[in-house]
Amino acid sequence: MAVYTDVPTEALESFLAGYDLGKLKSYKGIAEGVENSNFLVHAGDAYYILTLYEKRVAAGDVPFFLALMEHLHARGITCPQPVAARNGGTLGTLCGRPAAIVTFLDGMWMRRPDALHCAAVGEALARMHLAGADFPGKRRNALSVYDWRPLSEQADGRADTVQPGLRAAIIEELTHLEKFWPRGLPTGVIHADLFPDNVFFLGDTLSGLIDFYFACTDTLAYDVAICLNAWCFETDHSYNVTKGQSLLNAYSKTRPLSQAELDALPLLARGAALRFLLTRLVDWLNVPPGALVKPKDPIEYFRKLRFHQKARSAGDYGLSAKRVSA
Amino acid sequence: MAVYTDVPTEALESFLAGYDLGKLKSYKGIAEGVENSNFLVHAGDAYYILTLYEKRVAAGDVPFFLALMEHLHARGITCPQPVAARNGGTLGTLCGRPAAIVTFLDGMWMRRPDALHCAAVGEALARMHLAGADFPGKRRNALSVYDWRPLSEQADGRADTVQPGLRAAIIEELTHLEKFWPRGLPTGVIHADLFPDNVFFLGDTLSGLIDFYFACTDTLAYDVAICLNAWCFETDHSYNVTKGQSLLNAYSKTRPLSQAELDALPLLARGAALRFLLTRLVDWLNVPPGALVKPKDPIEYFRKLRFHQKARSAGDYGLSAKRVSA
Repeated sequence: MAVYTDVPTEALESFLAGYDLGKLKSYKGIAEGVENSNFLVHAGDAYYILTLYEKRVAAGDVPFFLALMEHLHARGITCPQPVAARNGGTLGTLCGRPAAIVTFLDGMWMRRPDALHCAAVGEALARMHLAGADFPGKRRNALSVYDWRPLSEQADGRADTVQPGLRAAIIEELTHLEKFWPRGLPTGVIHADLFPDNVFFLGDTLSGLIDFYFACTDTLAYDVAICLNAWCFETDHSYNVTKGQSLLNAYSKTRPLSQAELDALPLLARGAALRFLLTRLVDWLNVPPGALVKPKDPIEYFRKLRFHQKARSAGDYGLSAKRVSA
Repeated sequence: MAVYTDVPTEALESFLAGYDLGKLKSYKGIAEGVENSNFLVHAGDAYYILTLYEKRVAAGDVPFFLALMEHLHARGITCPQPVAARNGGTLGTLCGRPAAIVTFLDGMWMRRPDALHCAAVGEALARMHLAGADFPGKRRNALSVYDWRPLSEQADGRADTVQPGLRAAIIEELTHLEKFWPRGLPTGVIHADLFPDNVFFLGDTLSGLIDFYFACTDTLAYDVAICLNAWCFETDHSYNVTKGQSLLNAYSKTRPLSQAELDALPLLARGAALRFLLTRLVDWLNVPPGALVKPKDPIEYFRKLRFHQKARSAGDYGLSAKRVSA
């Protein structure tokens, strides 16, 4: 939950005076997102999301995120659409922070996604990758394979307090991934955080993708590997091959995966698991005692990593050889 | 900010199946209220507030609060209106908690209310008191003069860590109030927590009262005294007599205050200041170290108490003798 900045009515009214949205009728801080302050704003006859970008999001990156949402929306991806002010810009300043208004998307996120939801997200991810192909913006992935070792060092001395042996296991995995990380695979704009809470459904129909604040330029198949981690494990951390098959088949129908991408899938999935293990571990170790927001369990991703270390091919994720060659 | 309970989509859809609201389109946890979990729900073509009552609100009290809102709404007070399920009830169960849906009210709360806003809240409070006159429900004030000493004992040994001498000052004030607390003044339903964040405005027009979860049966003029504390002090804790005059005059025009109520005003205001001093002090002393939600400063109410201790009559709050006799 996140509202880091209280916005006075007068300040919001001045900010909105630069837009053609009609009269401000209400606004409520919403308990979503952990990086920014978000408000649901009722103005004129419509609802919008107002985001104040807090310090964890580099202000210089915001134009990339907003331009990406505009680009994807223009190409038929249902995602929040930045609303332009009268001066044509989509980024302003409110309460001393970079701030933007985007359209409000209806839809609910699935706490317990099934195989149909996994297929829907696979297709949507592929469509997003295709729609992003001609996006001119570039942003380096700040959590790429090169960033994992410095990140792991923030946890180094204390990793074993979370689980004995964790420190050595992380170092071993890092060394392996740094050595064998797939290079030369197709790159483009990736979402990089397409977890269930960032995908909306109305009934069983996918109704939108949100939260592009980790989006960056990186290996497309790595985005698929992130989704396998985020969508296809059960709450007991076991991999559900039916869900994996649904996700991969639906992705491949829209954007076929090359043999090189398929071969790299186990390694990419290991990398994705390690990335979320590391960020969760650092958050876990740095939470103030007694804080009301409980950080997410890093060990969930350690268990997923163990699964991926045993996987040998895309087949272990549910993609049949027949489908691969199709 | 408050979302203590995550509500899965499936659970909310089952809950809403008992209502005639149309299809669920979205719901967002909102960062408001500190006692309950609140969600802004879009269903059919309208927006609603869904509240899950958490353990700090006694489940047995919820029917009183809901019946009061229905009663006041039916008498023209703009407040959230509980929505009846198909079975006629307004209280259900969701995720193991008592839960209710109320209509969504547009409007913003004033971070920096001026004298006009104070007049509006004075009038609205008087109208609420009149509208509540025939409300049959009763609820004892759980934070009445009788409850302050046990409350103070929760802070007893540690009050002086917040400000030296605070413990003795509280005991002295308690003893005075227990001895001289006004009795026999008109009673009825009071809001008991009508702070600026519970009063909505559209432009300068008051558009609604919310959060009736401290409402109870008590001295009506005590509710006025709470509002003087909540609305008529500046951020430097100095009393603004213009705001006080506006609030009291507007209240009196709608519901004239008797001479006995006016005479009791300084004592009632002392009691209101002590009540908020004590609850804030206990919260302050019991916050877990490093918690993300910072409790409100109790000393603000100690300074207000010092002002009230010097007040001798309603005149010190801005009500002229002429207006009193009118």
